[in-house]
Amino acid sequence: MSAPYRLYYWPIIPGRGEFVRMVFEDAAVPYEDVGRMPESEGGGMKAVAAIMKGKGEGFPVYAPPILDHGTVRIFQTANICRYVAERHGLAPEGEGPRAQALSLMMTVMDVAAEAHDTHHPVAVSRYYEDQKDEAKEAATAFLTDRLPGWLAYFEAALQRSEGDYLMGRSVTYPDLGLWHLLEGLAFAFPNGFARAVADHPALQKLHEVIPRRPVLAGYLESDRRMAFNEHGVFRHYPELDEDG
Amino acid sequence: MSAPYRLYYWPIIPGRGEFVRMVFEDAAVPYEDVGRMPESEGGGMKAVAAIMKGKGEGFPVYAPPILDHGTVRIFQTANICRYVAERHGLAPEGEGPRAQALSLMMTVMDVAAEAHDTHHPVAVSRYYEDQKDEAKEAATAFLTDRLPGWLAYFEAALQRSEGDYLMGRSVTYPDLGLWHLLEGLAFAFPNGFARAVADHPALQKLHEVIPRRPVLAGYLESDRRMAFNEHGVFRHYPELDEDG
Repeated sequence: MSAPYRLYYWPIIPGRGEFVRMVFEDAAVPYEDVGRMPESEGGGMKAVAAIMKGKGEGFPVYAPPILDHGTVRIFQTANICRYVAERHGLAPEGEGPRAQALSLMMTVMDVAAEAHDTHHPVAVSRYYEDQKDEAKEAATAFLTDRLPGWLAYFEAALQRSEGDYLMGRSVTYPDLGLWHLLEGLAFAFPNGFARAVADHPALQKLHEVIPRRPVLAGYLESDRRMAFNEHGVFRHYPELDEDG
Repeated sequence: MSAPYRLYYWPIIPGRGEFVRMVFEDAAVPYEDVGRMPESEGGGMKAVAAIMKGKGEGFPVYAPPILDHGTVRIFQTANICRYVAERHGLAPEGEGPRAQALSLMMTVMDVAAEAHDTHHPVAVSRYYEDQKDEAKEAATAFLTDRLPGWLAYFEAALQRSEGDYLMGRSVTYPDLGLWHLLEGLAFAFPNGFARAVADHPALQKLHEVIPRRPVLAGYLESDRRMAFNEHGVFRHYPELDEDG
């Protein structure tokens, strides 16, 4: 029997952990979602806190999401997605295409980080409420100057692909990541996102078809899928989503 | 003869491109630094601009650094470093250690991105001069709340390693990246960096020994190595480095 996959992520938000869950769920690969397991079974917030920032045994890690797989302990969201996807049929074959897929997934995570930074432009270590004015300015700059370029890029990548998906005719992990990114943006900035995606038919199509994948649909409709909220990467503050 | 490596990056700053150059130079692998070649030979700023953001032929890319290698076109700094390092003896062997090394390199690039954001906290699309007050606040938060945690993490990773380097007894690409990160931080925040690194002997040792590597030393002492300046990722604005 092969070693179990153990995902460590905060239990109260979808956050970056959700990008990893998307890969496990779509591939129908069993995994332990440690942060959401009871403390009596070695889970919960404490278990996540215990292995972060290099504490505890094993390869030191900086921040969740963290994946344990036998003696392998890795972190960085795009890297975990890549690792799981390459082992379970959600990555292209070959060194070149695999490196290209990783470029795409890392870029998805860059957009997620920028979306996060709109509500914490001055310092992630301080409260949103203490940087609201700067957040308004940062959100406007994100929606006006940055998001259109990112989405135009992904639209071009889909258009240029030889199939309906980023890497061709098969779904690979950057497609799942891009879909979840679109979900997060639509939650955080319903107005801004609607405007930004309006002229991008390939993105709209991806946004529609991914949740129809049979295995994944079961997960998305289940209560295992957490709702977005105001503690995670994507937050809906109506004041940051006004018409610019 | 194998396909040449062609690196596309802005010619006027070390920037993120320098992390890639470190790998090529240390491995003594020839590469074309397209942005720094004459326009008459198909190089220069125009050549970099031409292939970014999905324009032109080939796999669409969002931003430099970009690497062309035969039919493979990839982007994202840590991914390019990984790709080259795994082909030329600067990555560990095995799927698990390789994934761990990538975690480390991606984290190096996260710190670089946060260092960059101190001078552009509100919007990368606007001038530093228009966000100086927020930059002062962001730099203080970075030096006080964030950098100590990052450096403590890398110190712990070096201490926990079975050798002098992050992945053990041999230098791998995250060591080269971490070294260049330390150089950039020391340039941008001489006071803040000196304080932050004071209690970290393993980091100090890495900072000392990497430039003594014979092949790399030749590069670092050459005029091919660009100086840091006020246009790149790491910028020295004395007002952002006051004693907190």
